[in-house]
Amino acid sequence: MSGREAVTVATLPWSLECSSCGKTRAAGGLAGVCECGQPYLVRYAAAPPPDARSLLATRGWTMWRYREWLPLADGEQPVTLGEGGTPLLSTPRLAAKHGFSQFWVKDESTNPTGSFKARGLAAAITRAVRAGAKSFVVPTAGNAGVALAAYAARAGVPGRVYAPAGTPATILSQITVDVSTLREPYRIEGKKTLGLELAEQLRWTLPDAIVYPTGGGTGLIGMWKAFGELARAGWFTRTPPRMYSVQAAGCAPVVRAFEAGADACVEWPDPSTIAAGLRVPRPLGGRLILRALRESGGAAVAVTDAQLAGAARELQSEGIDACPEGGAALAGALELKARGLIQGGERVVVFNTGAGWLYRA
Amino acid sequence: MSGREAVTVATLPWSLECSSCGKTRAAGGLAGVCECGQPYLVRYAAAPPPDARSLLATRGWTMWRYREWLPLADGEQPVTLGEGGTPLLSTPRLAAKHGFSQFWVKDESTNPTGSFKARGLAAAITRAVRAGAKSFVVPTAGNAGVALAAYAARAGVPGRVYAPAGTPATILSQITVDVSTLREPYRIEGKKTLGLELAEQLRWTLPDAIVYPTGGGTGLIGMWKAFGELARAGWFTRTPPRMYSVQAAGCAPVVRAFEAGADACVEWPDPSTIAAGLRVPRPLGGRLILRALRESGGAAVAVTDAQLAGAARELQSEGIDACPEGGAALAGALELKARGLIQGGERVVVFNTGAGWLYRA
Repeated sequence: MSGREAVTVATLPWSLECSSCGKTRAAGGLAGVCECGQPYLVRYAAAPPPDARSLLATRGWTMWRYREWLPLADGEQPVTLGEGGTPLLSTPRLAAKHGFSQFWVKDESTNPTGSFKARGLAAAITRAVRAGAKSFVVPTAGNAGVALAAYAARAGVPGRVYAPAGTPATILSQITVDVSTLREPYRIEGKKTLGLELAEQLRWTLPDAIVYPTGGGTGLIGMWKAFGELARAGWFTRTPPRMYSVQAAGCAPVVRAFEAGADACVEWPDPSTIAAGLRVPRPLGGRLILRALRESGGAAVAVTDAQLAGAARELQSEGIDACPEGGAALAGALELKARGLIQGGERVVVFNTGAGWLYRA
Repeated sequence: MSGREAVTVATLPWSLECSSCGKTRAAGGLAGVCECGQPYLVRYAAAPPPDARSLLATRGWTMWRYREWLPLADGEQPVTLGEGGTPLLSTPRLAAKHGFSQFWVKDESTNPTGSFKARGLAAAITRAVRAGAKSFVVPTAGNAGVALAAYAARAGVPGRVYAPAGTPATILSQITVDVSTLREPYRIEGKKTLGLELAEQLRWTLPDAIVYPTGGGTGLIGMWKAFGELARAGWFTRTPPRMYSVQAAGCAPVVRAFEAGADACVEWPDPSTIAAGLRVPRPLGGRLILRALRESGGAAVAVTDAQLAGAARELQSEGIDACPEGGAALAGALELKARGLIQGGERVVVFNTGAGWLYRA
């Protein structure tokens, strides 16, 4: 393999397409956002080869088992700490209590650094290091900074994290190294593996509804992209899941835009919630989130801090170390069922995006 | 499958054999230690069937993928939070720095509840609940309590944890429920999956040396049992790895007994180390640990708190959230190499048994 390591920019088998104006550029080099200010999406030159599925039986249990779906050229090795391969937990007691017939929690707390952020950062840092990045910076509500510090360290490159005042002390204590705003397209590719992995764990079916706590929304956008790519590759032919965003009542720009029928988010003034990961007043991917919610037949719903904290405790009492955002997902699912948007007989997956321990002082 | 759920005690396809006096008893019921005071080992009536290996391709990425090797009867479902499937990380920079050609860290920090304890408790609680246990108690240096609380909650059974003064506050804050001393044989079976998983991740080969931080030593005993069972099943024919125990200089009963040529440990007076998991003055499995070290051609070595803390920081600077015990494993490997007991050209695996975050205040 080592003879194939010398990949040049010109051979990368994907390009970058602006999610808003549609302008494309070659991949390679350090990728930012489009000149129109909106995020790029990675577009692959070819669908994964027919044997990509049988190859899975030979692969390890990390997100890189889906390497044919990811921005890796032949022979490239990722910067990895073993991210992905997280449990999909069936929760029969919760299901019975709340009147669901099939209810799962996708538990992202067992990723390296304790959250789903590991997936995006692993992909982004893998590409950035290949493009020659010598240091990294990331602004973060917390967990992305922990992940960035760890992946920069794993790559042997210095990173720098900017966190707002009010970030939980336990999260800050995890950050031991010093990475430029990763307003770049590869974190979405990493998060795409949430959808690929969910499909594989459900034996190449998908649930009826996915309930996702939405701050920046990269995971939701990534999963929606994954489901489209899986359908185009013919791996999956049924209706894709309805995607639901859950936000905190004190910072709900996606809910407001969704309910107003708008195609972009307006900045939320004075954002406030204990769920630090949901404190994103104007998500850069707002248009993409709203598109995924509408195209999938989903919706957006807000829950109070009391609701999300109570639901996090409920998950914890089932042995799942839920973070406040994971609590928001469960609370949102209950709210959606109460409104009749999700039916009790449907197959529902909620996401616990990180570990509760990151929030304990 | 549900028609096969009504497993009776009489049908359990394994028995319990005392590791010291050799006395056997039927499995089923609540299992303790032998009347001679020494631990039981699980002995299976039959080796895993020939198709157990091909079945792995159809299984999820938890330790229960090895269910044919584990104490589960046909049709039984485990109490699980998705434990196992942890990364085996190649660390080329560390290898180069310390003169090893192949050096891996098995990173158990990504288990549910942040440590390797999840494996043992998942197996123990699975069997205890089947046997009718209505509550649990465990004495713990910390991480076992976190795991017990989570698995008892997952099983829907109350648990009680006794922790010594001086247990890190972050660990205590994880324990939200109330479990009897699990001086029982199934934790070893759960820990056995460390060895099975390592073998699969190395494509059914094994390293030359395994360096394991040893408190109670269940993981080391479990791996040694796994290697024996793999050999008897014909999955593995080469020489098994040499097993090395690393202990803290302030609590090193296994090192003292090993060096004295004794076959049992004497209680260590006044145990003291920052590595809470190594603060086990008289491991119940001492005879089994010493047997595994000698039969494998390994040894035992002590490192100071300064050595283990420095080595934990070194792992952290590679992006691996090592706990003090994980640091002890790296420090021990370096000490063993310095003494000429491990050669630079050998394939070495050290274990990071849990997450560093559990130790941060």
